[in-house]
Amino acid sequence: MKAINGGITAVKGFTALGKFIGIKKKSKKKDFAVIYSSKVCNAAGVFTKNEVKGAPLIVTKKHLAGGKAQAVVINSGVANVCTGKKGISDAEKMAELTAKELGIKKNNVLVASTGLIGAYLPMAVIKNGIKGIRKELGKNSNAAEAILTTDSVKKEIAVKVGKITIGAIAKGAGMIHPNMATMLCFIGTDAEFQAKDLKQMLKNSVDKSFNMTSVDYDTSTSDMAILMANGMAGKINKKQFQNALDFVCIELAKKIAIDGEGATKLVEVVVKNAKNEKNAKIIAKSIISSNLVKTAMFGNDPNWGRIMAAIGYSGAKINPGKIDIYFNDKQIVSNGTEAKFDKKKVVEDMKKDKLLILVNLKEGKGMAAAYGCDLTYEYVKINAAYHT
Amino acid sequence: MKAINGGITAVKGFTALGKFIGIKKKSKKKDFAVIYSSKVCNAAGVFTKNEVKGAPLIVTKKHLAGGKAQAVVINSGVANVCTGKKGISDAEKMAELTAKELGIKKNNVLVASTGLIGAYLPMAVIKNGIKGIRKELGKNSNAAEAILTTDSVKKEIAVKVGKITIGAIAKGAGMIHPNMATMLCFIGTDAEFQAKDLKQMLKNSVDKSFNMTSVDYDTSTSDMAILMANGMAGKINKKQFQNALDFVCIELAKKIAIDGEGATKLVEVVVKNAKNEKNAKIIAKSIISSNLVKTAMFGNDPNWGRIMAAIGYSGAKINPGKIDIYFNDKQIVSNGTEAKFDKKKVVEDMKKDKLLILVNLKEGKGMAAAYGCDLTYEYVKINAAYHT
Repeated sequence: MKAINGGITAVKGFTALGKFIGIKKKSKKKDFAVIYSSKVCNAAGVFTKNEVKGAPLIVTKKHLAGGKAQAVVINSGVANVCTGKKGISDAEKMAELTAKELGIKKNNVLVASTGLIGAYLPMAVIKNGIKGIRKELGKNSNAAEAILTTDSVKKEIAVKVGKITIGAIAKGAGMIHPNMATMLCFIGTDAEFQAKDLKQMLKNSVDKSFNMTSVDYDTSTSDMAILMANGMAGKINKKQFQNALDFVCIELAKKIAIDGEGATKLVEVVVKNAKNEKNAKIIAKSIISSNLVKTAMFGNDPNWGRIMAAIGYSGAKINPGKIDIYFNDKQIVSNGTEAKFDKKKVVEDMKKDKLLILVNLKEGKGMAAAYGCDLTYEYVKINAAYHT
Repeated sequence: MKAINGGITAVKGFTALGKFIGIKKKSKKKDFAVIYSSKVCNAAGVFTKNEVKGAPLIVTKKHLAGGKAQAVVINSGVANVCTGKKGISDAEKMAELTAKELGIKKNNVLVASTGLIGAYLPMAVIKNGIKGIRKELGKNSNAAEAILTTDSVKKEIAVKVGKITIGAIAKGAGMIHPNMATMLCFIGTDAEFQAKDLKQMLKNSVDKSFNMTSVDYDTSTSDMAILMANGMAGKINKKQFQNALDFVCIELAKKIAIDGEGATKLVEVVVKNAKNEKNAKIIAKSIISSNLVKTAMFGNDPNWGRIMAAIGYSGAKINPGKIDIYFNDKQIVSNGTEAKFDKKKVVEDMKKDKLLILVNLKEGKGMAAAYGCDLTYEYVKINAAYHT
């Protein structure tokens, strides 16, 4: 699989916009985006499992009930969560105003918000921002920028499989933990699929990517991943599409992990030969989520005891005496005790911006990968000061 | 309940020692302790649920099988975990040498180690350290000091209930998470109880205290809490004893939480009026474990949205629209949305070294408390550098 240039607007029929309308008053960064398909799409979404759900999620789920969508309107800066009934009617108003301006059905507009929890949307600012959007749509990456919050870089990707294109943009840097990360992800394709197939394929890909990504063990109230297919490039084999969609989601998950608040490196954990896939997943998630493992990675310290501990408390039954652990290509643990290794070389290797921790349980055929980052001073700084 | 001076040696018949024998070579801090009862005790223990268990735990469990104990030998600096068969025989040797020196049965000596995972015990150093211990036993707090690792202060407490005394020492500052914290706790009493009663009462108290304490979501491989009763002061009503034991364990849990690596304050979370006690516990643990809540507490930032998010992803079914949240005596959230509060005053209040977060779910009668601390630069620093 090879990425091509661009994000969601690399897909036939999709245009987008991103601009500053006045929500992020201090930073003056772009805070408003619209994604639009010239043709109505079949569409599906996956949403946070947090019991506290943002108002935009409630509205978007309702609008997706018929399996159709043509546009997404997104703001960053304010999440519109814990805002009661006013929050819901604000989110509905956002969809309504967008639909009117684009000349499409209100129910075909999805809504997403990300940012601070507990504040109301500045509706006058948003209303003003929506005016004239039709003319501002284009083939650029402004939307990818406008959906960011504490992210340091925009995240987009596109791939081509035969005549079909899949393109996506995402955001996420903190409050990132399986089910799902604090993330928004909007995927467009010109392939033709029914909504129920899109839903199943999206779920499959999310389970392997965003649900295996952890920055800080905190599951957000606003997560969503949306897949919209306008069919303008025709049909494609399901398996081929699933593979491409997996690739898109895993690449975006990695981009989110390495952009984890304060992170200095991407940490990828691969667990192999577990009793089954479920165990492999539990163990991979446990390692990638451990504050102690993450601080050791920041300190370039091959403190494998913390990895053993995280395997041990994961909840999976294991045989500690059989475990091998590798950092990149170097073996650190052999059958549950320290392997002979050149510590200086390993420490040098850990200083790179990417580390693979491979755990071999030698018990079965289960395999899983998880994506995360180190835990740094900067993480604490960013999160101690975000609100005020 | 009121604490009296001293720790485990405040109890009739109990003496202890703590000294530097050469394990913590760099810091030269005390690294070796013995606790001794002049009379054989009925005894019980609770141990980590981590699947990777330290060698000392395996030996101590075996020695406790008959419900008897007379001494505990403890070292800090090296945890003797992930050390295979050699680790087990080293732990057994520690018990054997201690028994010989004290003139008691090997099976009545319990063993505990805490410190770095993956290294072998320096047995020559330990053997040498055990020589002459009988004469070094006394009524002082040296043992409480000698069991510490990254702790900044010693943790001990004693209470009197009628003619009965309960005294205890504990350690723990990091790798602290329910089931259990990375902690050692040794409790002595001169009350008379059967081993099976001691076991049940210890479990009850641990569930309310150490299992509700979180510093960093990491469950250690070496945790144990031991309760030894030599009966020298006679019998006491079970309920009275349980209350006193609860008090001892909760006070020690708080001491561990406030001494959390890098912590600047104790955070106590009380959840009340949950559907049931189980839900209250799940929610309290979820809040106390959230990195985002903990960094906000460090930043003295009443970022209640993160608390709502942590309630939402706890796994408990809840009604977000009914939730009230208080910081100390000030209401921050009313029915799931922001309450009117004086932010300046709340921020001032948060700067103290103790914060109570009270969550009222208004759904039933379930109640639980959890103990933790804030997440700071210092935590990252300590844990990025601990190994090397």
